Amino acid sequence: MKKENNGTVKIIPIGGLEQIGMNMTAIESEDSIIVIDCGLAFPDDEMLGIDLVIPDITYLKDNIAKVKGFVITHGHEDHIGAIPYVLKEVNVPIYATKLTMGIIESKLKEHNLMREVKRKVIKYGQSINLGCFRIEFIRTNHSIADSAAFAIFTPAGTIVHTGDFKVDYTPVFGDPIDLQRFGELGKKGVLALMCDSTNVLRPGFTMSEKTVGKTFDTIFSENIHSRIIIATFASNVDRVQQIINSACKFKRKVCVEGRSMVNIVGVAQELGFLDIPAGTLIETEQMKNYTNEQIVLITTGSQGETMAALSRMAASLHRKVSIQPGDVVIFSSTPIPGNEKSVSKVINELGMKGAKVIFQDAHVSGHACEEEIKLMYSIIKPKYSIPVHGEYRHLKGQAELAEGLGIKKENIFVLRSGDVLELSEEKAEVVGKVQTGAILVDGLGVGDVGNIVLRDRQNLAENGIIIVVLTLEKFSNQLLSGPDIVSRGFVYVRESEGLMDDAKAVVEKSVQHCLDKNISDWSKIKGIIKDDLSDYMWKKMKRNPVILPIIMEA
Amino acid sequence: MKKENNGTVKIIPIGGLEQIGMNMTAIESEDSIIVIDCGLAFPDDEMLGIDLVIPDITYLKDNIAKVKGFVITHGHEDHIGAIPYVLKEVNVPIYATKLTMGIIESKLKEHNLMREVKRKVIKYGQSINLGCFRIEFIRTNHSIADSAAFAIFTPAGTIVHTGDFKVDYTPVFGDPIDLQRFGELGKKGVLALMCDSTNVLRPGFTMSEKTVGKTFDTIFSENIHSRIIIATFASNVDRVQQIINSACKFKRKVCVEGRSMVNIVGVAQELGFLDIPAGTLIETEQMKNYTNEQIVLITTGSQGETMAALSRMAASLHRKVSIQPGDVVIFSSTPIPGNEKSVSKVINELGMKGAKVIFQDAHVSGHACEEEIKLMYSIIKPKYSIPVHGEYRHLKGQAELAEGLGIKKENIFVLRSGDVLELSEEKAEVVGKVQTGAILVDGLGVGDVGNIVLRDRQNLAENGIIIVVLTLEKFSNQLLSGPDIVSRGFVYVRESEGLMDDAKAVVEKSVQHCLDKNISDWSKIKGIIKDDLSDYMWKKMKRNPVILPIIMEA
Repeated sequence: MKKENNGTVKIIPIGGLEQIGMNMTAIESEDSIIVIDCGLAFPDDEMLGIDLVIPDITYLKDNIAKVKGFVITHGHEDHIGAIPYVLKEVNVPIYATKLTMGIIESKLKEHNLMREVKRKVIKYGQSINLGCFRIEFIRTNHSIADSAAFAIFTPAGTIVHTGDFKVDYTPVFGDPIDLQRFGELGKKGVLALMCDSTNVLRPGFTMSEKTVGKTFDTIFSENIHSRIIIATFASNVDRVQQIINSACKFKRKVCVEGRSMVNIVGVAQELGFLDIPAGTLIETEQMKNYTNEQIVLITTGSQGETMAALSRMAASLHRKVSIQPGDVVIFSSTPIPGNEKSVSKVINELGMKGAKVIFQDAHVSGHACEEEIKLMYSIIKPKYSIPVHGEYRHLKGQAELAEGLGIKKENIFVLRSGDVLELSEEKAEVVGKVQTGAILVDGLGVGDVGNIVLRDRQNLAENGIIIVVLTLEKFSNQLLSGPDIVSRGFVYVRESEGLMDDAKAVVEKSVQHCLDKNISDWSKIKGIIKDDLSDYMWKKMKRNPVILPIIMEA
Repeated sequence: MKKENNGTVKIIPIGGLEQIGMNMTAIESEDSIIVIDCGLAFPDDEMLGIDLVIPDITYLKDNIAKVKGFVITHGHEDHIGAIPYVLKEVNVPIYATKLTMGIIESKLKEHNLMREVKRKVIKYGQSINLGCFRIEFIRTNHSIADSAAFAIFTPAGTIVHTGDFKVDYTPVFGDPIDLQRFGELGKKGVLALMCDSTNVLRPGFTMSEKTVGKTFDTIFSENIHSRIIIATFASNVDRVQQIINSACKFKRKVCVEGRSMVNIVGVAQELGFLDIPAGTLIETEQMKNYTNEQIVLITTGSQGETMAALSRMAASLHRKVSIQPGDVVIFSSTPIPGNEKSVSKVINELGMKGAKVIFQDAHVSGHACEEEIKLMYSIIKPKYSIPVHGEYRHLKGQAELAEGLGIKKENIFVLRSGDVLELSEEKAEVVGKVQTGAILVDGLGVGDVGNIVLRDRQNLAENGIIIVVLTLEKFSNQLLSGPDIVSRGFVYVRESEGLMDDAKAVVEKSVQHCLDKNISDWSKIKGIIKDDLSDYMWKKMKRNPVILPIIMEA
């Protein structure tokens, strides 16, 4: 087998290594490129007004003739969320397992792209040929059902990409991760392993999803007379299944609230990933026909997202559900870093309404911890190690772990997005760099908000804006009207009339100065107004509003 | 003793119960009010551009004749930060222990208030008489030295306020918390206990500060050849002392970086709270005269604050210190909720520069856990319980704990800011509500930014602003010039010229419509421009910029 592998292959991360999210990796050899995943990132706090972020795919567009298709590991937003945007520019077929494809399709429908995009559902164990590559889909476990790893057979040898995974010997749906196949691949020789790094800094093993079901049973049995509300990630179909199992066991009806939860439960049920006994699901409007002890409500909002159903319930803004004293609310989740404060806020609001909040022990991670990653390395025994999916410290953590397991230091690559890593049996090195970056999506605009606009938004957000308008006679430069001063987001004007009057006087003086000195260049006049008013506001208020002089001609 | 206590006393939280920070409680009886603490809060994410938040002290101003003084438990910002603002309006004496007063004084100096404000340093065990109250300062342990609890002897009985505390049997500086005195007070009878709730949801005991010193020794001994950089809270003087102890033990010199760290180390050393052997401290500029293994750098930035010294080092923006491969950076802290992402960012940046980052085990909390709070209740045995210092869920948690320890449910009060709780030996009830709230400080402006300004800033931040300027003839309403359209933070104009041209056309049509219909009311014309342009932008871009029409008259 090894004798055949005398070519080279390039691994090019297009996104996903500088930040959480935006996972996308190109694998290139000869005349072929395949792309693993097509994810979005959620905006950083500084990206004001931005809805989502997608990778810069210039490299794929420049090489579009080579691109054979997208292979998708699983249905989370950071792996599929950019598809509707990217496919408009690089329209090649998508390959994914059944549930993953179901979730992709509901996205495509939303963007009216169902007819444009070719799709094929692949089963575990099945292989597809794309250009010079053969890609095999291998069963894994993760916090969303139907997740896959890939064995990619290339002219240089076999690359294994784990996708996001954990090792769950007792999964809720389907079988455990296909360790036998990984073993078989390892035995035949694997050139490179690209492995999930998310939890590499956590020692031990990640608990089985099934343990959460036991926790639900315990909580249900201890709160037999209360209405139970459970917030979790919409995409965690197995979690939803376990809630339904406990509900049935305790003879409760189940309502589902939150747009994405309703959506995914629909898709999962239709595709056979959820087993809901007839008569279990009821509409939220029907809740009033049942007592509290007959109800379980599954909802979005486990991250404290302002607009999600649970947050609206907690803030008394939900149309259909009001929190009642005695309600038991379970957070079946842990806060994603950055969401801690919003989650606390919702917990406090629920508490003030008399609800009992349970936010511990009703969740397990979907990512492999240290020992599982060691298992993956030990069963695959790759020549090269390329940690993926994590912040720098996680990638570095996996690199250290790999070294500890006997991978040579020079065969371990902590890449950055855009790096072109060329691999062969003989050697591996970063041979170049391609263009990558983050494209900001704001409303319908893709990429029309860049750094200048963001910096303006930041300045506006911090201190507001002062607009100075005046009319000058075109040729004589005589002041015909103004200066008028208007502000937004600066001070509450009615209480600061004196300040605004003083500001007007400052500008009048600046204009007079310009006219006296016969300064006729309007951009110079604007500059002087801006500087003078800016100095005044800093001296007077220690603030730096955006100052925008507008000169009209008449 | 009890016979004398036949009066009533009111407990009025002015701030601190709706949010973390802004701790301030008025105690009122007969003709006297004393105020415990005078803290600030840091702004929420939605409070764009706000520097800090202070409590609304209308109630104190309205009753200024009664206010006898501020008694301060300790020197953290959430207990002293509002002093420079509040004392300008309610100028009464401040009473605090030595280090607390030292930190307050450096604040007063910054605000040029040293001469205006009367101050008195109080020792543990000492009492002061203020109006009808006697207040005794009692030694506690906390993450800042010289913290105090108060026993407040009132006409209705004794109130104990713990301040922020933990029970540390082996503190780094000074003695353990004065449990004997609490016992004595309890034996004589305590009317009400106001106890720190921060860590009530954490089981067990908080570890002694001294355990961190052992961790430092271990880390120092394992990294004998590396430069060591330790980030921690500037106010944690005992932590700084332990770093100095380890440095001396391992024959390293100590540099201090970060404005607040330099400041507090200066104050603490001057007042005798830091024992630094001569020759240990060096200036950062002198570092070059020593090898890496001879250096420890103590710095601010343990919360990933953008402008703090460590963050600037990590981002290569620090003037004096560059991170080198092999540096060991210790985070002697845990991220305060909300700061997790910034801390991660700094850790990643440090890692990319080749530093080894240690962010576990080098910190203990300064607040009492569940068992310590139980100890406090069991030794004080108060009649009434009023949990303080925490979010709602923490207050509620302490209320449940108090009930479990035998306090009657009707004697436990989870208050909200502004509640007036009247206590006597016979009964306790909330008898009223006073005005409270959050006053926003932005630069030199105190309270001039309110909800309208914040909403404007939020809108500006999300979508930017479009300004439409036109000149109308005063009487005929004839269009003399414009409409001109200018935007900031909306789109990058050079790439969206078409859009802005279309926008101009939309406005021209609106104006023409107004002129045709003889609409002469300028506010109506502005309204029509705003609506039409807003509709257009939503339809075209799914965005909602702030639209500001300005009409000039000529």
